[in-house]
Amino acid sequence: MKNYLKHHPWHIIEEGFHREFHEVSESICSLGNGRFGLRGNFEEDYSGKSLRGSYFAGVYYPDLTRVGWWKNGYPEYFAKVLNSVNWIGVRIFIDGEALDLDKTQVSNFVRTLDMEQGLLTRSFDLNPPSGGQLTFHFERFCSMADPDAAAIRISIKSEGYQGKITLEPYLDFDVHNKDSNYGDQFWDRVNEEQDDSFSMVSAITKKTAFTVSSFMHSKVEVNGHQVSIASSSVAPMKVSRLYKVDLKKGEELILHKTVVNLSSLYVHPDHQTEEGKKKLGENEVIGYATMKRDHIEAWHKIWDGADIIIDGNVMAQQGIRFNIFQLWQTYTGADARLNIGPKGFTGEKYGGSTYWDTEAYCIPFYLGTADAAIARNLLVYRYLHLQKAIENAAKLGFKDGAALYPMVTINGEECHNEWEITFEEIHRNGAMVYAIYDYIKYTGDTSYLTDGGLEVMIGVARFWSQRVNYSQDKQAWVMLGVTGPNEYENNVNNNWYTNYLARWCMQYAIEQIEWVKQNHPDKWTRIKQTSEFKEEEIGHWQERINGMYFPWDESRKVYLQQDGFLDKDLMHADDLPASERPINQKWSWDRILRSCFIKQADVLQGMYFFEDHFDEDTHRRHFDFYEPMTVHESSLSPCVHAILASRLGKPEKANEMYLRTSRLDLDDYNNDTEDGLHITSMAGSWMSVVRGFAGMQVKDGLLHLAPVLPAGWEGFSFKIHYRERSLGVTVTGGHCDVTLHSGQPLEIVVNNERRQL
Amino acid sequence: MKNYLKHHPWHIIEEGFHREFHEVSESICSLGNGRFGLRGNFEEDYSGKSLRGSYFAGVYYPDLTRVGWWKNGYPEYFAKVLNSVNWIGVRIFIDGEALDLDKTQVSNFVRTLDMEQGLLTRSFDLNPPSGGQLTFHFERFCSMADPDAAAIRISIKSEGYQGKITLEPYLDFDVHNKDSNYGDQFWDRVNEEQDDSFSMVSAITKKTAFTVSSFMHSKVEVNGHQVSIASSSVAPMKVSRLYKVDLKKGEELILHKTVVNLSSLYVHPDHQTEEGKKKLGENEVIGYATMKRDHIEAWHKIWDGADIIIDGNVMAQQGIRFNIFQLWQTYTGADARLNIGPKGFTGEKYGGSTYWDTEAYCIPFYLGTADAAIARNLLVYRYLHLQKAIENAAKLGFKDGAALYPMVTINGEECHNEWEITFEEIHRNGAMVYAIYDYIKYTGDTSYLTDGGLEVMIGVARFWSQRVNYSQDKQAWVMLGVTGPNEYENNVNNNWYTNYLARWCMQYAIEQIEWVKQNHPDKWTRIKQTSEFKEEEIGHWQERINGMYFPWDESRKVYLQQDGFLDKDLMHADDLPASERPINQKWSWDRILRSCFIKQADVLQGMYFFEDHFDEDTHRRHFDFYEPMTVHESSLSPCVHAILASRLGKPEKANEMYLRTSRLDLDDYNNDTEDGLHITSMAGSWMSVVRGFAGMQVKDGLLHLAPVLPAGWEGFSFKIHYRERSLGVTVTGGHCDVTLHSGQPLEIVVNNERRQL
Repeated sequence: MKNYLKHHPWHIIEEGFHREFHEVSESICSLGNGRFGLRGNFEEDYSGKSLRGSYFAGVYYPDLTRVGWWKNGYPEYFAKVLNSVNWIGVRIFIDGEALDLDKTQVSNFVRTLDMEQGLLTRSFDLNPPSGGQLTFHFERFCSMADPDAAAIRISIKSEGYQGKITLEPYLDFDVHNKDSNYGDQFWDRVNEEQDDSFSMVSAITKKTAFTVSSFMHSKVEVNGHQVSIASSSVAPMKVSRLYKVDLKKGEELILHKTVVNLSSLYVHPDHQTEEGKKKLGENEVIGYATMKRDHIEAWHKIWDGADIIIDGNVMAQQGIRFNIFQLWQTYTGADARLNIGPKGFTGEKYGGSTYWDTEAYCIPFYLGTADAAIARNLLVYRYLHLQKAIENAAKLGFKDGAALYPMVTINGEECHNEWEITFEEIHRNGAMVYAIYDYIKYTGDTSYLTDGGLEVMIGVARFWSQRVNYSQDKQAWVMLGVTGPNEYENNVNNNWYTNYLARWCMQYAIEQIEWVKQNHPDKWTRIKQTSEFKEEEIGHWQERINGMYFPWDESRKVYLQQDGFLDKDLMHADDLPASERPINQKWSWDRILRSCFIKQADVLQGMYFFEDHFDEDTHRRHFDFYEPMTVHESSLSPCVHAILASRLGKPEKANEMYLRTSRLDLDDYNNDTEDGLHITSMAGSWMSVVRGFAGMQVKDGLLHLAPVLPAGWEGFSFKIHYRERSLGVTVTGGHCDVTLHSGQPLEIVVNNERRQL
Repeated sequence: MKNYLKHHPWHIIEEGFHREFHEVSESICSLGNGRFGLRGNFEEDYSGKSLRGSYFAGVYYPDLTRVGWWKNGYPEYFAKVLNSVNWIGVRIFIDGEALDLDKTQVSNFVRTLDMEQGLLTRSFDLNPPSGGQLTFHFERFCSMADPDAAAIRISIKSEGYQGKITLEPYLDFDVHNKDSNYGDQFWDRVNEEQDDSFSMVSAITKKTAFTVSSFMHSKVEVNGHQVSIASSSVAPMKVSRLYKVDLKKGEELILHKTVVNLSSLYVHPDHQTEEGKKKLGENEVIGYATMKRDHIEAWHKIWDGADIIIDGNVMAQQGIRFNIFQLWQTYTGADARLNIGPKGFTGEKYGGSTYWDTEAYCIPFYLGTADAAIARNLLVYRYLHLQKAIENAAKLGFKDGAALYPMVTINGEECHNEWEITFEEIHRNGAMVYAIYDYIKYTGDTSYLTDGGLEVMIGVARFWSQRVNYSQDKQAWVMLGVTGPNEYENNVNNNWYTNYLARWCMQYAIEQIEWVKQNHPDKWTRIKQTSEFKEEEIGHWQERINGMYFPWDESRKVYLQQDGFLDKDLMHADDLPASERPINQKWSWDRILRSCFIKQADVLQGMYFFEDHFDEDTHRRHFDFYEPMTVHESSLSPCVHAILASRLGKPEKANEMYLRTSRLDLDDYNNDTEDGLHITSMAGSWMSVVRGFAGMQVKDGLLHLAPVLPAGWEGFSFKIHYRERSLGVTVTGGHCDVTLHSGQPLEIVVNNERRQL
């Protein structure tokens, strides 16, 4: 755990350059606008440890799979989000010497991520050997108002310094992925162009043929007087221009670099040059100040709907805003072809593809903070991949339209290559259906059922019905060889969570088929045809629903995580010496597997999903049995436990879990923030507050709140979108005010009492 | 299954060049002499599909581990036997055109592996465009009489042809492993030398610094008249010399190439050049014919002790000789630093390291066919690695001198990198002790106990005592998270075989400690000290022995392969459609894992190891339950089943299994002979005959035989070494003759009747 960043309600502040944590800071200071983004790299040269990263949504490369021992069924490739053009680059020379903070001594270094305005700024002082002082100030943003645009402003002010400053803004597309399996370069050169008014560089991905073009315009002024370009250079995949300035004492040199980034997801490659020049010209007319104002205004609108205000605890406040900020930078919901990668635009790990995190964690966040269309786009993303999911299941021997959604994907095809995950962590398939259920429950909008949802449900139900087998020994339907959400168990039999989810999926599919039959018979005719549904399937599913096996301990009255769980040496995680934690870094894999320790909520994930199915005693027994064995070594773990703990009246545990989830990256709990941020689990932080502390739920079509105030908080407030309304919720000690900001009157339930809004 | 080789009792014959199976033929025609060996590659150029392979015993390279997802505890590298110098190379040009059987049309092609004499020969006719005919004859051997020497003879006879023949014998060390993880070249150049009397090339392995030098002498004659060298060339890692001959009609051109290969395991790098020149000179004096005679004589001696003669079934005869031949080529028992890699000198797959195959399969073979010193050397090999096994266990969290032998190794360090094997297939650890037990039982020689054996036993017993844990639920000691010999199950609980072997290891260790205490108290004092043994350890082991859990099905009265086995859909392998077999090529891994299908003997491996522990009914019940579910997709599977089947009076099954094990590579049952031969399982073929059909066992210090004659055999006979005696066993219909060829008189038991020899 690191603690070098200042606590502040709106800003992340690094005072003094922490070279040793620079890659962590680069991750934390990532910027994005849903369409492209980049790590908090320096504009100028930096020769120290750094992961340069610039990414475009939906632009990927199928990197040939690398494994030690091939297993039949492994995918051919891992689709990776690509490191792409470095569009922020500006080389800076002072009296011919390159500015490089790994070597150049500077003072008063401050790096600030302003989350309210979406700005990354940096300033420091430098005393050149020739005398005097230079004060640097950097500012940049990826425009939330114009998703193709970004801009940088660099100011260099002389305080008694006189000498030669050279600036070289550039675009560089000669970029490699650090995580390339075989050291391949994923980009082929397309072209470069440059004249006095613009520079551009364009490249195309190998195999997938995505074209990305980056355009820049730069302007340098000294005390308001424009400096002309001294020279320019065009090399393969790189363009740059040079400004030479004789800076005098007291003068201020300002560089504006405005950038347009276009990818072929949005602009056809043939039109990118024309479009890029046009947009660059328009932005030049608008000017940096206006671009910035529009960008801040866009953020203002987001915050207006999505902010959570926490009174009396600046750590908690900073944490939650950081999570909300990064989520919105990653995904704005505008495009159903996109999804939320586990690292967003902040790193390369996990390939940048989509996991079940989206369904279990992100959809509730977008449901609560934005128009329902955004969450619906995330559902449609999976509907668009249904055919691939059916093909994926067929590769594993399933038939008749059974669908298995991949563990990791960008384009619907499975990318993962560990058998115990790829083939066995199949509970993800249930999350696809749960997300539809969650969406309908929250929005009341059933139209998605007949617009694709039911076909997804049928494919998933078919998978489960084939994946179980009848045990003569148990006289019940069992599910062998799975990995649950707790990935510290592999290839187990009858994982309770998976069995429970599977049964629920079949049951829910039957119910929804009946509902559609009744209410939209014409649509059912079409769905039945497209999915080649046979009425007898219902009977098969019902047989499995009725006879599904669930491991159970009669003495403790708890469901067992899997068969044989009680054979383990049952211990509490607190009894492990600190020197052995995290166990995933200290223990060999076999030892982890045979231990009782739980990586993330497993049985409790089911209790969380299906809260209404169990009474409070049951919840409490399971929480008290499993949570003490849980090591929370997945970023997805603390939030679920925070929610359950706050509902069970365990405020200390809830608060501990909340801080761990919301400040996971800021405090680098797991020592891995340098690889990038844990984007998807950030949605869990929001859920901890809204579904946890505020106790928000929808039951029988009614919005419920049951707030508790965490220790050390004076109060908290947030807005939620709910069924075309905007509600404001303010919780203080003993009070819960709910305001209807917009939309039709509404009845809600607060602490089991009905209220009219 | 392929069937292109002729059946012959002593020869493997390919008539007509089967280009499509050339890599299979290369594997089958491998030659070796325990110190080096090579695949059956052509001497001349060949541009078709081919795996050039030349290997030196004990010369390895630690190739950096390649995995998809790193697990804590994985070894840093995989030690690989190295593809090394091509010392057979002779380029041949006819009228300037290179001979290349992928392109050059030839007729009357015959390739023959003469197993009796250890010779690989090849002949064919060629009609050059300029007219006439050339008859080629190749012959080569790796000397069994001089483990540093090898020789090649090439004859080209003109029948009406007149023209220019050029011969270019060479040595080439610019060789790469096909299975290199990152495409690295594993050899660094040392030097090359050449003059009229010799050529040499020398290289050193990166990291491990093994030096190998290869020396050649070549002589070309036409009708008995020597041809002088036209030119010679020395390039980095390659030396060659050129002979140009104007061949006239009716003339015969003969090339002799004699080779000396030295590795730094036997000759210090500083002395290799001197030693190589000396040896080359000596062999030159001896001459090709004498070298060949000595080599054949050495093979004659081996066959005299190791041959199995099968009357009335040439397929079975050819199969068993092929197995015996390849085993003796791979390992001659002369050096305790060496062991038997799964592919020997015939390919690169599995890295060329040592698995538990040696203990379970090869030791019985060498015990039966050679002096006990050879099997003892294989035991010593593991004793020399005891410290590494203790370090290996410590890496996985075990302590106090617990030893875990690696799954795969060359130097005692673990090389394997699949968690389910590396960390979990721990039954291998028991095989180390079983081999000691087997050795003592067969030889009656207890001296190895105090020469290292007991320390190995103590280390292994400690491991088992720590690897189990007490299940409060079962009120018994359980072993969680293992992989048994049936690798079609991973991470199972209470694998019966592993639990049984573990308990036996602890029990046997206690007994042997007591015996050594009683009989060699002074040696016990030393062993106790070196192994830091504490008397209370016995109590811990005994507690686990007494309370070990074994999964059992009361209704069928069978031990279960593991917990939950009866939850599977129990089917017979015969009911699988042919299109789905082998399942390891047709099914995804999860489907294999959750199926009931068994890769190789698992419970039955235990029944085989501990035959005396169970009565015949118990054996029969278990065989009848498990064998039908067994797909025999490991080369180690059929032999164990052949033995059990013949003991249970199931001659058809025994014969089916015997043919499958003995002709596995000749008939390419598993479609993988091209990667190299299944060397270690070849010992299983010998066991099928001697321990299976002849029913050889040692019980209470007495040698037992209980022969059955497989259907279609008229009789079979073999010799065995037994307690410094040589016995001949001849089985015909109804009779079993046993002759004492040498050694002291002996009492044995044949079909439960005592006989004096």
